[in-house]
Amino acid sequence: MHDLILKAETLVEALPYIKQWYGSIVVIKYGGSTRSGNQELESTLRDIVLLKYVGLKPIIVHGGGKDISDFLTRLGIVSKFIDGLRITDKKTMEIVEMVLSGKINKEIVLVLNKLGASAIGLSGKDGSLLLAEKVSKRKSRDLGWVGKVSSVNSEILEKLLQEKFIPVVAPIGMSKTGDTYNINADEVAGHIAAALKAQKLIFLTDVPGIQKRIKQQPTLISTIRLNELKMMIKNKIITGGMIPKVESCVYALQSGVQKTHIIDGRVSHALLLEMFTPDGIGTQIIH
Amino acid sequence: MHDLILKAETLVEALPYIKQWYGSIVVIKYGGSTRSGNQELESTLRDIVLLKYVGLKPIIVHGGGKDISDFLTRLGIVSKFIDGLRITDKKTMEIVEMVLSGKINKEIVLVLNKLGASAIGLSGKDGSLLLAEKVSKRKSRDLGWVGKVSSVNSEILEKLLQEKFIPVVAPIGMSKTGDTYNINADEVAGHIAAALKAQKLIFLTDVPGIQKRIKQQPTLISTIRLNELKMMIKNKIITGGMIPKVESCVYALQSGVQKTHIIDGRVSHALLLEMFTPDGIGTQIIH
Amino acid sequence: MHDLILKAETLVEALPYIKQWYGSIVVIKYGGSTRSGNQELESTLRDIVLLKYVGLKPIIVHGGGKDISDFLTRLGIVSKFIDGLRITDKKTMEIVEMVLSGKINKEIVLVLNKLGASAIGLSGKDGSLLLAEKVSKRKSRDLGWVGKVSSVNSEILEKLLQEKFIPVVAPIGMSKTGDTYNINADEVAGHIAAALKAQKLIFLTDVPGIQKRIKQQPTLISTIRLNELKMMIKNKIITGGMIPKVESCVYALQSGVQKTHIIDGRVSHALLLEMFTPDGIGTQIIH
Amino acid sequence: MHDLILKAETLVEALPYIKQWYGSIVVIKYGGSTRSGNQELESTLRDIVLLKYVGLKPIIVHGGGKDISDFLTRLGIVSKFIDGLRITDKKTMEIVEMVLSGKINKEIVLVLNKLGASAIGLSGKDGSLLLAEKVSKRKSRDLGWVGKVSSVNSEILEKLLQEKFIPVVAPIGMSKTGDTYNINADEVAGHIAAALKAQKLIFLTDVPGIQKRIKQQPTLISTIRLNELKMMIKNKIITGGMIPKVESCVYALQSGVQKTHIIDGRVSHALLLEMFTPDGIGTQIIH
Amino acid sequence: MHDLILKAETLVEALPYIKQWYGSIVVIKYGGSTRSGNQELESTLRDIVLLKYVGLKPIIVHGGGKDISDFLTRLGIVSKFIDGLRITDKKTMEIVEMVLSGKINKEIVLVLNKLGASAIGLSGKDGSLLLAEKVSKRKSRDLGWVGKVSSVNSEILEKLLQEKFIPVVAPIGMSKTGDTYNINADEVAGHIAAALKAQKLIFLTDVPGIQKRIKQQPTLISTIRLNELKMMIKNKIITGGMIPKVESCVYALQSGVQKTHIIDGRVSHALLLEMFTPDGIGTQIIH
Amino acid sequence: MHDLILKAETLVEALPYIKQWYGSIVVIKYGGSTRSGNQELESTLRDIVLLKYVGLKPIIVHGGGKDISDFLTRLGIVSKFIDGLRITDKKTMEIVEMVLSGKINKEIVLVLNKLGASAIGLSGKDGSLLLAEKVSKRKSRDLGWVGKVSSVNSEILEKLLQEKFIPVVAPIGMSKTGDTYNINADEVAGHIAAALKAQKLIFLTDVPGIQKRIKQQPTLISTIRLNELKMMIKNKIITGGMIPKVESCVYALQSGVQKTHIIDGRVSHALLLEMFTPDGIGTQIIH
Repeated sequence: MHDLILKAETLVEALPYIKQWYGSIVVIKYGGSTRSGNQELESTLRDIVLLKYVGLKPIIVHGGGKDISDFLTRLGIVSKFIDGLRITDKKTMEIVEMVLSGKINKEIVLVLNKLGASAIGLSGKDGSLLLAEKVSKRKSRDLGWVGKVSSVNSEILEKLLQEKFIPVVAPIGMSKTGDTYNINADEVAGHIAAALKAQKLIFLTDVPGIQKRIKQQPTLISTIRLNELKMMIKNKIITGGMIPKVESCVYALQSGVQKTHIIDGRVSHALLLEMFTPDGIGTQIIH
Repeated sequence: MHDLILKAETLVEALPYIKQWYGSIVVIKYGGSTRSGNQELESTLRDIVLLKYVGLKPIIVHGGGKDISDFLTRLGIVSKFIDGLRITDKKTMEIVEMVLSGKINKEIVLVLNKLGASAIGLSGKDGSLLLAEKVSKRKSRDLGWVGKVSSVNSEILEKLLQEKFIPVVAPIGMSKTGDTYNINADEVAGHIAAALKAQKLIFLTDVPGIQKRIKQQPTLISTIRLNELKMMIKNKIITGGMIPKVESCVYALQSGVQKTHIIDGRVSHALLLEMFTPDGIGTQIIH
Repeated sequence: MHDLILKAETLVEALPYIKQWYGSIVVIKYGGSTRSGNQELESTLRDIVLLKYVGLKPIIVHGGGKDISDFLTRLGIVSKFIDGLRITDKKTMEIVEMVLSGKINKEIVLVLNKLGASAIGLSGKDGSLLLAEKVSKRKSRDLGWVGKVSSVNSEILEKLLQEKFIPVVAPIGMSKTGDTYNINADEVAGHIAAALKAQKLIFLTDVPGIQKRIKQQPTLISTIRLNELKMMIKNKIITGGMIPKVESCVYALQSGVQKTHIIDGRVSHALLLEMFTPDGIGTQIIH
Repeated sequence: MHDLILKAETLVEALPYIKQWYGSIVVIKYGGSTRSGNQELESTLRDIVLLKYVGLKPIIVHGGGKDISDFLTRLGIVSKFIDGLRITDKKTMEIVEMVLSGKINKEIVLVLNKLGASAIGLSGKDGSLLLAEKVSKRKSRDLGWVGKVSSVNSEILEKLLQEKFIPVVAPIGMSKTGDTYNINADEVAGHIAAALKAQKLIFLTDVPGIQKRIKQQPTLISTIRLNELKMMIKNKIITGGMIPKVESCVYALQSGVQKTHIIDGRVSHALLLEMFTPDGIGTQIIH
Repeated sequence: MHDLILKAETLVEALPYIKQWYGSIVVIKYGGSTRSGNQELESTLRDIVLLKYVGLKPIIVHGGGKDISDFLTRLGIVSKFIDGLRITDKKTMEIVEMVLSGKINKEIVLVLNKLGASAIGLSGKDGSLLLAEKVSKRKSRDLGWVGKVSSVNSEILEKLLQEKFIPVVAPIGMSKTGDTYNINADEVAGHIAAALKAQKLIFLTDVPGIQKRIKQQPTLISTIRLNELKMMIKNKIITGGMIPKVESCVYALQSGVQKTHIIDGRVSHALLLEMFTPDGIGTQIIH
Repeated sequence: MHDLILKAETLVEALPYIKQWYGSIVVIKYGGSTRSGNQELESTLRDIVLLKYVGLKPIIVHGGGKDISDFLTRLGIVSKFIDGLRITDKKTMEIVEMVLSGKINKEIVLVLNKLGASAIGLSGKDGSLLLAEKVSKRKSRDLGWVGKVSSVNSEILEKLLQEKFIPVVAPIGMSKTGDTYNINADEVAGHIAAALKAQKLIFLTDVPGIQKRIKQQPTLISTIRLNELKMMIKNKIITGGMIPKVESCVYALQSGVQKTHIIDGRVSHALLLEMFTPDGIGTQIIH
């Protein structure tokens, strides 16, 4: 009995946070690279179902780099990368879409629904959600069907959030002429958060957050202001896969999102720790 | 960090219960006799605010016997009781109403609102919620303005529950001709639960629940069926203040309420233990 | 038959006024001092029920000075007044609230509902309607729990007016930290009228209205402009209990209320005469 | 002042009736033959505007026999009647419709709107309100375009009553093949009341009501039961223009209308006397 | 089968236009002078029913000059005209209204409903749709009851368009004092289009459109800008019955209507050709 | 011009059919085998967009057998079939889902949106739309992850149809325990039509319809009654891929669907011919 009372107290301790976030839209980027086993997937999605039930409005944007690479390998297709971007020819694009929209997206939807939510999987084609255009050449090389978001048509998301549904978005875009584009999922998350003026945008990653002195003695930055972050980007202190995440944070904050977070998805219940404890985890980027 | 993760796990463990009760109406009788200090009051009401935020629709019905007695003493009014019912003359009735509607009801509303809810205090007069009629004589004695519920006009409760409000009801009834009646709060709770076809009716008391062999070696009954309970009432195994509670349970169950509970309000977080743990506490009465 | 036809003609004569006020919010301060007998209470409230049925949206704010004094006397509590304000210690505050919220408020609700309305009694605690703060010292004396309105949270009033209900408000306020304050009812009426941008604010008093040459040869002022009234306040021509009424009128008019009235509640059907006859009665204060 | 107070009292005396009829649909047949001068028209319609403002939902059905006859005479068209029904050839039908829909209907709408209502004139063609079919021959004579109601499509009436409008209906029907029919206005009133399950159906006529011993010593029948009325019809005690009225009453009562009335439209404020006095006037027909 | 496939292709060709106009309000002036036979009437109205079913919101405003003249002749009333305006005394006004509201309006409603629409006939009196005032003298002659639109009260039109109804408007206006005015139907169409900020205003006439060099070698102007048109009016190149049409176009365009059209109603399916073919027919006037 | 008028006439000829089907739900099974080239796809989907714009509520269910086979071949996976059902192991199931949900479904959505619709792609996992269970063994062989529909949770479809969206459904089901099943698309179409009580269920196939004497001298059956069809099934006159289609028709008709059709998707505008011509094409199955 004593144990149960302690557990009840834990619920009560969460009340101030539940009140704080009640009714808030939270866009969660759930990266492909955090998906090493099903147990972690299910644990993270259960946390999101909990957020839904205590009154938040989560939207999930997922990536899928590793699964795509695995599948291309099975088909004997070799990918080249420039600046971390996969050169995407027609055949590759077909596989990218099938893995993102037909495999990962539906797996996330399935697990959420099994856990008691009502999730709807979307790609940027559904309801013309993500209009995209071709990215410019890098190092004089055409990247093929790699796109960037030109506008977000958030109507279907708004309808689903008014009802009880959790939208799950695959980072595929369409052009007005009917072409299909592969878009960076971090960028998609930032644009969706911006279009909906979300209260929060959270990146679940496989690092502790933004770190300083990353080469010598890396130290986590708990809170950083938008201006400081811009300086870090300019000074190339931010590198690699962290770049699209911080750029999305910058874009989202400048478009009316209240707070953005880069946290360590490998930590158990990382989302709940971020939302429901006083200190949070990882790095928060604020105005 | 480890502690925080354990706490997050506790939240996640509550998810199946939150899902189960999502959108459910729960009528909670919060007895005057459990109110020995403000800390307990605040703790109980904080649990109710939590229930509200995780998607339930709580309604509170309160009593106030002790406060009434205190106040009558201060005014030099001596009460007589027959079968545990206070003989209520005009002067007494005035004080009863002032204490219930003007003191206890508003104190509960104040604490709930301070804790972040939006509570509305009502008596049976508001929106003609509780139509009452005089109880019959006991032992040939007229009991004065002691009433029983003749009908519940639940419209105002339904409107408040559609919005974000928590209704808090004082057990005062009105007759069609404009008289005021003092009604047993347990009875009011049962009738309101019945009128709204609540999913649950919970009595917070100062005993562990319904017990058997209460004189020799009292043992708590965890679950009892409606028929068994009726037999216990008929055989006068149930006695004293427990009688109106069990009669309310019987009435509510027969009117479409799914489950009723008699639990020990002195246990910390009794409500949460009842709603959010597999075994619950106290006695549950089922069909 | 002839008499009945004359009566029908009277109804028809009221039509232009009914059209004029259709859908209007009218805040009515019903002072404690007008309540000498139940017959007058019932007559006034019947007029208000009629206003409701012909399409207006009345809100009642009541006081209760005399009843409070009577009750304090019964309990042997002696009140001191400074500038007409009752020094209100903890014990006094408890009685003030019980009389206002538990006796007068519920009596008004009861009579309205008996007459066919659907009234809901509220205090400033319900739905956190009236946030209050302590008034400053008067003549270097702390007045205890005497408060003034710091903000009106009119959501519950708006919901009730959208439905068929008549709100009845007791002048009790709450602070964010959970303290209870005694507020002047005239001030509450003015703030509620202002928050709802009411079409009319009417004070039912026990004088004919605002009078000039009040000491020599008092003459009723039928209509006065806001600026003239301010001058009268500045020149201390307005005195005593009339001060909070005229200050409320000034505040309400400056906050968007269209017209305010100070009329003689002792006149039979004073409200109907004000609303439904060409000249009205008492004093009207206009922009 | 005393006079004004007496008038206010008259308003208050009407309150119980206003409460009783609040929200009720009342179908009023306003016969052409009651229209001897504009003053009477305006007086009757003002009463109806008053009914609207105090919460009822009036629908007016009008006739227009005299105006039609006048107009036909101006055009040199001579009408023949069989059993009181005008033989209606194509040319006559055109004039009948123009007088009913283009003159009387619009005049009633104009006066209502001038008096502050928002009236909408309809014929049975608008929204396909009245589907009609040809009546059978009388005394072996074809009556031309005289029709009877085959069904009421009440959708447009329901939409208008949900909003603030007063529908005014001319007794013209249409067939599915696009023919136009002249229908008895009493019959139309009865069918509309039946289709809407109106609370009341009132015929404003130019006689005191239903009378017994009409040839010797006519006496008004205040109240008559449906069965008694049927017997009077069977025994041919009811004759002439009263027949379609009583048949409509029978049809309406059998279709769910609560009460029907035949009253003397020549009496000033006949409608208000019927609705707002204890005895009413004319004859009421009840179940 | 081949023919049917060609027909299906025609439907598909219309799709881009259907998409373009989906949900648009289109005010259609259907002139009396286009009504030489019922077949043309039915053909035009069938086109309008089709517009309704493919998602547009048509409103019809009709005239009726020829029918009015015919009827006045039958009654031996001789009309005089000044500047093309009929001098309208009381007797004439009565006939004008009966023909417009009681004959033409109801005939259009009847045909629309027979074709499967749900049309509601209105005049400017219904819902006080068209408030009118007297036009000034022409050549020192009073024109009697000839009016111009002083304001449009479009509430009833908006309610009908929200539902499934097609409003059909007769060009009759009312003054606040209850007088009836005869208004030019072209002017009414322009004011209604302006009040509703319609996407399109279309005049169905009996000429090909606006023509240049009308006396020598008339040539149709396909598209003309507002400024050019104003210049043509100023230079008196526009004459006769075309003047009120172009003035209405100017007024509508200046009040927010997107495009106005003057087309030849004698051409089969003129409306469909205008809306559903790339070039349209007649003259379009644009900003 | 003459040609354009003929085209307009064709639009008008479609009006009776547009009226007939206005607001109707039509479930369209669009088989994989009809998809030989993009032009046919686009032509069929444009017809569906047209149906949407003229007021119908289409839902598309698609298959994808050929694409799945192609893809499995590329991955070197060989499929075995029993009774025309693909034995579906885990690896095959993964590819089946990726092709259906990630390739074909999104391609259909893309084309519809490019053509001006707002389509949303779903699989049976989204909103838990299709609950499935394992089919029983065939010829003693376990078929792996081949499922049948156990229930349809149509909530998400209803929400999308209330708004402006066209749902596009891939025939993938989920079990309560989170397994994925491959379901026959014909069966899915029948169950969705049944769950929504659709007005029509149409199978677009690559044969002319149901034929009799199929081996000697095949003749198309235009209309067949449910009972006759059942007899043909029982007598094994229906064979091969036609079996699941006719079984779906039987199930849908018995569940409240009004009419079902099996038509030749290779004919240009087959859907429009079926819906908008008097004779239709293919076979219709009626009660």
